[in-house]
Amino acid sequence: MTQMIPITRLGPCRHKSPLPESTARATGQFPFMSDLAATPSASGEPGSGGETRGFERAGPREHIFFDPANTAAGIVTCGGLSPGINNVIRTLVMQLYYHYGVKRLLGFRFGFQGLAPRYGHDVMELSPQSVRDIHALGGSILSSSRGPQDPAEMVDTLVAQGVNILFCIGGDGTLKGAHAIAQEALRRGLALSVIGVPKTIDNDIAYCVKTFGFETAFAKAVEAVQSAHVEAKGAPNGISIVKLMGRDSGFIAANTTLACPDVDFVLVPEVPFKLEGENGFLACLERLMREKGRSGGQPHAVIVVAEGAGQELFQGEKGRDASGNVKYGDIGQVLKVEIAQYFRDRMPVTLKYIEPSYLIRSLPANPHDAIFCYYLGDHVAHAAMSGRTDMMVGYWNGYYTHVPLELVVGHRKRIDPASDFWRQVLFSTGQPARMD
Amino acid sequence: MTQMIPITRLGPCRHKSPLPESTARATGQFPFMSDLAATPSASGEPGSGGETRGFERAGPREHIFFDPANTAAGIVTCGGLSPGINNVIRTLVMQLYYHYGVKRLLGFRFGFQGLAPRYGHDVMELSPQSVRDIHALGGSILSSSRGPQDPAEMVDTLVAQGVNILFCIGGDGTLKGAHAIAQEALRRGLALSVIGVPKTIDNDIAYCVKTFGFETAFAKAVEAVQSAHVEAKGAPNGISIVKLMGRDSGFIAANTTLACPDVDFVLVPEVPFKLEGENGFLACLERLMREKGRSGGQPHAVIVVAEGAGQELFQGEKGRDASGNVKYGDIGQVLKVEIAQYFRDRMPVTLKYIEPSYLIRSLPANPHDAIFCYYLGDHVAHAAMSGRTDMMVGYWNGYYTHVPLELVVGHRKRIDPASDFWRQVLFSTGQPARMD
Amino acid sequence: MTQMIPITRLGPCRHKSPLPESTARATGQFPFMSDLAATPSASGEPGSGGETRGFERAGPREHIFFDPANTAAGIVTCGGLSPGINNVIRTLVMQLYYHYGVKRLLGFRFGFQGLAPRYGHDVMELSPQSVRDIHALGGSILSSSRGPQDPAEMVDTLVAQGVNILFCIGGDGTLKGAHAIAQEALRRGLALSVIGVPKTIDNDIAYCVKTFGFETAFAKAVEAVQSAHVEAKGAPNGISIVKLMGRDSGFIAANTTLACPDVDFVLVPEVPFKLEGENGFLACLERLMREKGRSGGQPHAVIVVAEGAGQELFQGEKGRDASGNVKYGDIGQVLKVEIAQYFRDRMPVTLKYIEPSYLIRSLPANPHDAIFCYYLGDHVAHAAMSGRTDMMVGYWNGYYTHVPLELVVGHRKRIDPASDFWRQVLFSTGQPARMD
Amino acid sequence: MTQMIPITRLGPCRHKSPLPESTARATGQFPFMSDLAATPSASGEPGSGGETRGFERAGPREHIFFDPANTAAGIVTCGGLSPGINNVIRTLVMQLYYHYGVKRLLGFRFGFQGLAPRYGHDVMELSPQSVRDIHALGGSILSSSRGPQDPAEMVDTLVAQGVNILFCIGGDGTLKGAHAIAQEALRRGLALSVIGVPKTIDNDIAYCVKTFGFETAFAKAVEAVQSAHVEAKGAPNGISIVKLMGRDSGFIAANTTLACPDVDFVLVPEVPFKLEGENGFLACLERLMREKGRSGGQPHAVIVVAEGAGQELFQGEKGRDASGNVKYGDIGQVLKVEIAQYFRDRMPVTLKYIEPSYLIRSLPANPHDAIFCYYLGDHVAHAAMSGRTDMMVGYWNGYYTHVPLELVVGHRKRIDPASDFWRQVLFSTGQPARMD
Repeated sequence: MTQMIPITRLGPCRHKSPLPESTARATGQFPFMSDLAATPSASGEPGSGGETRGFERAGPREHIFFDPANTAAGIVTCGGLSPGINNVIRTLVMQLYYHYGVKRLLGFRFGFQGLAPRYGHDVMELSPQSVRDIHALGGSILSSSRGPQDPAEMVDTLVAQGVNILFCIGGDGTLKGAHAIAQEALRRGLALSVIGVPKTIDNDIAYCVKTFGFETAFAKAVEAVQSAHVEAKGAPNGISIVKLMGRDSGFIAANTTLACPDVDFVLVPEVPFKLEGENGFLACLERLMREKGRSGGQPHAVIVVAEGAGQELFQGEKGRDASGNVKYGDIGQVLKVEIAQYFRDRMPVTLKYIEPSYLIRSLPANPHDAIFCYYLGDHVAHAAMSGRTDMMVGYWNGYYTHVPLELVVGHRKRIDPASDFWRQVLFSTGQPARMD
Repeated sequence: MTQMIPITRLGPCRHKSPLPESTARATGQFPFMSDLAATPSASGEPGSGGETRGFERAGPREHIFFDPANTAAGIVTCGGLSPGINNVIRTLVMQLYYHYGVKRLLGFRFGFQGLAPRYGHDVMELSPQSVRDIHALGGSILSSSRGPQDPAEMVDTLVAQGVNILFCIGGDGTLKGAHAIAQEALRRGLALSVIGVPKTIDNDIAYCVKTFGFETAFAKAVEAVQSAHVEAKGAPNGISIVKLMGRDSGFIAANTTLACPDVDFVLVPEVPFKLEGENGFLACLERLMREKGRSGGQPHAVIVVAEGAGQELFQGEKGRDASGNVKYGDIGQVLKVEIAQYFRDRMPVTLKYIEPSYLIRSLPANPHDAIFCYYLGDHVAHAAMSGRTDMMVGYWNGYYTHVPLELVVGHRKRIDPASDFWRQVLFSTGQPARMD
Repeated sequence: MTQMIPITRLGPCRHKSPLPESTARATGQFPFMSDLAATPSASGEPGSGGETRGFERAGPREHIFFDPANTAAGIVTCGGLSPGINNVIRTLVMQLYYHYGVKRLLGFRFGFQGLAPRYGHDVMELSPQSVRDIHALGGSILSSSRGPQDPAEMVDTLVAQGVNILFCIGGDGTLKGAHAIAQEALRRGLALSVIGVPKTIDNDIAYCVKTFGFETAFAKAVEAVQSAHVEAKGAPNGISIVKLMGRDSGFIAANTTLACPDVDFVLVPEVPFKLEGENGFLACLERLMREKGRSGGQPHAVIVVAEGAGQELFQGEKGRDASGNVKYGDIGQVLKVEIAQYFRDRMPVTLKYIEPSYLIRSLPANPHDAIFCYYLGDHVAHAAMSGRTDMMVGYWNGYYTHVPLELVVGHRKRIDPASDFWRQVLFSTGQPARMD
Repeated sequence: MTQMIPITRLGPCRHKSPLPESTARATGQFPFMSDLAATPSASGEPGSGGETRGFERAGPREHIFFDPANTAAGIVTCGGLSPGINNVIRTLVMQLYYHYGVKRLLGFRFGFQGLAPRYGHDVMELSPQSVRDIHALGGSILSSSRGPQDPAEMVDTLVAQGVNILFCIGGDGTLKGAHAIAQEALRRGLALSVIGVPKTIDNDIAYCVKTFGFETAFAKAVEAVQSAHVEAKGAPNGISIVKLMGRDSGFIAANTTLACPDVDFVLVPEVPFKLEGENGFLACLERLMREKGRSGGQPHAVIVVAEGAGQELFQGEKGRDASGNVKYGDIGQVLKVEIAQYFRDRMPVTLKYIEPSYLIRSLPANPHDAIFCYYLGDHVAHAAMSGRTDMMVGYWNGYYTHVPLELVVGHRKRIDPASDFWRQVLFSTGQPARMD
């Protein structure tokens, strides 16, 4: 029997859920989720850290903690943009307003800054009217910012505004902030529910098979790779480099690659490589170019690189730190320079460099991502109304789950080079498993 | 402990898999999949039919049944088009040719007709060269056709062509055909592996959480709904009807709706409804229009209807069979006529009718679907090479699986009106759960 | 020397244009357009009707008729939707408000109904704030309706609302309505400027090389043809029919065809054809199918048909009127039925029918169309402020022009079968110039 | 009467055009173009350089110079990629092969390198079969390269290959090369027709209102600006910079801006500006930000900059040459650094930098561009077959024209800051006309 990972709850659920009534549609049984339902054990899964327990399943509860008439909810969006933020906001507002009957809904602007009075940002009143059409827009109607703020100060703001529920949409840093707010509120004995909504364009949040906006983002990155391929084939010995987001995890680069069999090499932070030497990347690239030529084709290559790849190259004997960027080297520029230099006396190549950067994350969510956002938005509303706190809603192989923030923060989901996923990527590119 | 659903195998695997060598990249351990690995129990899942056993997991096996040097594989694509067919074909060819070393690859044209000599269709030789760029194309480079052919005749063709492995890409009918071929081959004692690749734009194959091309298809349908919404708001009392594919299962209609909060009603085959009466669809539609007007908005409505919805309306007292289409009524036309008639004396409405039909299924796969296709293509190659037969590769909550064809054929995955999924759809539209 | 086609003017221009000041940017000379500037002669051009005079050129005038402080402008959008209506509205509002200083801007809703009090439609106040983001939306924020209203009643409304300028965005019917309003106002001696903004998805307005939204629309139609092509090649002897808009003019069908060399036949209202007989369409289609097969290819065909094509088939000896649609036959359905019947005993064909209908006209304008809309919006503002009336702004081989409404209404731009354009279409399809 | 700009011709046209026969469709008169037809005078037009003569009109001639049976044609594509190259190639091949009956068609690969034997590039045989589907592909199936080759050597190659007609698809440099080849051939008395097809993503070729691919390219750039806008609004005091192509002419930047009313500043090579000072760009930017804040909006700004803008900033007193890039400074990086520095003590801004680079030029042509390509392809075929040489086909306010290469090379079409076009751009952004 799977054991359940426990979730902090503010207290007993004394109110009947208004959903069967408010939705005015369930003539039979309303499909509530039981508090006892758990996912299959997460054991042995990538990112599970040896976990042998299952997650509590997300969904509407028959009894809820908060009395909707006396409840106010706030939303804050932090960190970088991701397709789908507005879909989540829209769903939260619609669900809370129409189905739960929570009429006071506040949008804190510019991330956690919006909860720190000294920034002087206005608070935005949210209503069905004001969010009706926002799902067509990229970005966040609340805007965002980076960086933490003082938890005590933020809880003071929430108390002053009479907010009982706070939804924090963001990545690792945001979830840390949410955890701190939740802890501070628990310490003060406040009935304040703090719920995280995992958002990361890098898809690197632990215990989340995927995060919203990710599919939209790498689909856009695919366009960049297609351009790179056209350019590589459009010139003598063309080599195109596409640099994509991904500081610690190469999921965008790897998924883009999987979707594009035209990619010849993908370099990610999880798989170190050397540039030089017989097995190094440059020699592999040269071999590929010569092989394509020999087999009657046109020598060309497409290289996808995550921004965090090859950081090991920036220290030590290669002395490249001198070029300025000591902390986090610009691997794209390094590749450009090194490839040009390497081929100078070997083969006249035509190098192209493409960096779509923000283009991939400022889009509206595509339909599949949009659906995911609507589920997430609903499930965090249900979790909050049932009095849960200090948790986020995750997605685990087909199940929406409740995950304690403590379990998530500080971990990162990363590509496992021994996984099916990476094997599939190597099948697709044909690149050597090791270039070191 | 989960019990495993057994898969038919042609014999013991006597050959070492060439993958670690051929891929020339596994410097450490190659991540083979164990024959003993099973998914969590499928019990209690939608479509599981009370199943309490897990599925065998797909993936490359350390030992294989077929000797690649003496193996020839065929591919056939049947039924309606779906985004991603060419991606699957491409992967199969690349994987078998480069990694397994199977050099003889045949494409049977125009579905099962290509296996029936009397049609005289040519057989297409497939090679890495000929499939390199086909992932950019919609449709199937092999073309397709509908309908079964005689299994004995088809096995004769395969034997005559020296084919050891047949991949059948198609839906329920195709999988039935594949099952018949597999059974016929087993009866004759042939070492012929027949592997199904589930393909259905309706996403209605049992034991498959999703099928390839489905996301691409409903994403396109979303465009039609957005048009419908613009048209509905662009005229006095505008009502737009969008008819989508889905004969027995309303997944396209329902997912399109979930992705579009502008949809007011979605009608699917799984949820019967009445047109007339106080709780009937027409009265519900009128109430919605009047409500929107009352609350200061502009009365308008968007209705999504699956082609198989409301078939119960075509018999009996309403006498609508007279209009010709007795067997499978055109619900779109019926709605158009009935709505016009109903509102004639109640409210001057502006009706628009949109039917994107083939537009949603003839596209190339979007990037997320493409990845799914590459996985599928790989996994069916692995399954075949390991000597499995009479099975398909399914996808079950994050796992690729081996599923006996017998288990699949004749069943259809349908929307469960008591499920989380349908609850979510009702949340999104706000339509009554019952209109009968 | 080109003579100029005269435009009605309300009176002398006594006010200096505020543009050099308001735009606060012209440190040198502001590039006003002279009243004397004319286009090259329109003589001999398609649609010129033997015209030997040039058009007055559009653009900002140094002196204007209306005093912005005492001026109010109204906008009305009529007829079917077209991509770009909102771009025109946005530009009008921004230009009049910020640059001319006209602060009272009214949107009449639901077409001419909005000027007829008995419909009770609200008048919408327009401001930079309310139109800022509308260019991203398809449709019209003012909504539309079809059909005329009483000119006297509409002038009464304009007078009652204190409106001095009315912009009528619409097609032939709308321009007729605008002409009637302008005439009525002139008759009453009112200083009311009525300016037409030509809008037609069919691109059939006289003296306009192109209308806004047309490029966006046929670009979308191209997708339908690409689908049709994929479907035609995806089945044995596949024949796909795509029915597009175009009642009297086949520009959408013909341009879609020009952009798609995969189209084999395009049928437009301007070129009559027969179905039967040795030179008839059906025999031509059969010959094409057989030829493709003979030359080693796969027999398939893509047919594009404008909704108004082949209307001559619906009378007389073929007796097809019996099927109900006497006035305007459904040529798409006729083709479907006739092709199926014709090939029944000749060749087993697979027929597909695609009708994208509203999908092509409810989109936001593409960037090239958007620019065109911004120009149009500006030029109609300039024309109105200079006291011109009873005219529209046209586009004539690179020049924006002032065109008297009288010259336009009742004419239709149609494809000239003897033109370069049609020759180009025939080159592209390879179809016979005559099938009658 | 308009005088005609003369075009070099190889000799009298002694052959009847096969078009009426080959197209087998002109049952009446075939619409040939007269040699006497001229466009309206080009006088006074932007780029006309005071020209008072009209251009010869392009189109099929009744009599042709080359005997198709003894004619071979070559195609070469040079310089940077542009959407639509493959459409032009396809049309040329189809037109020459099917309609004129020229069966020997050669593709020289990798630009003028393909005509210089020492590179050893293969020559590609072109046929209807090999080009049938290339219009769906971005780039050039012939690939390209930059830089000139020796005209004598290239003419030698053409003679050796028996080529009578050479189509050179490219920009200013290519047309110079084509002119040199034509002159060399004329000097030798060869009956070799050299025809230019103007291609430039920057739209800067003289006597061409537009070049193919340009609309596709700036439409893609619009996406980058929309991203920039989303990012600018998504952070506190967000400022986004979008750097676009355009070394000497700012047409891409300016048209992208015209299509996007969200752009606040566009910087182009034609309009010099200062960074510092009260009227400099930085002060203007600050004023805009503060104004937006004051009027209750959210301070944010979107800046579009052409790569060739502000080159005057890279010399002299600002001493910026020290940073390395003396010849052609990276204006995007300069803006990034300068804006950051300027605002450091004034306002905490969030800067984003987007450079879509090759993404905008490697796409397939959009439908409107595709049509333009088909026209161009046809018209250059007609021009060549009629024995014209040393010319290109231009597009002039609605007319396809014959333009002598001598007239074109060395000139560049640039934005005229006193034009309607630039006035329209300033209207759209609201930026000061002068920032110096």
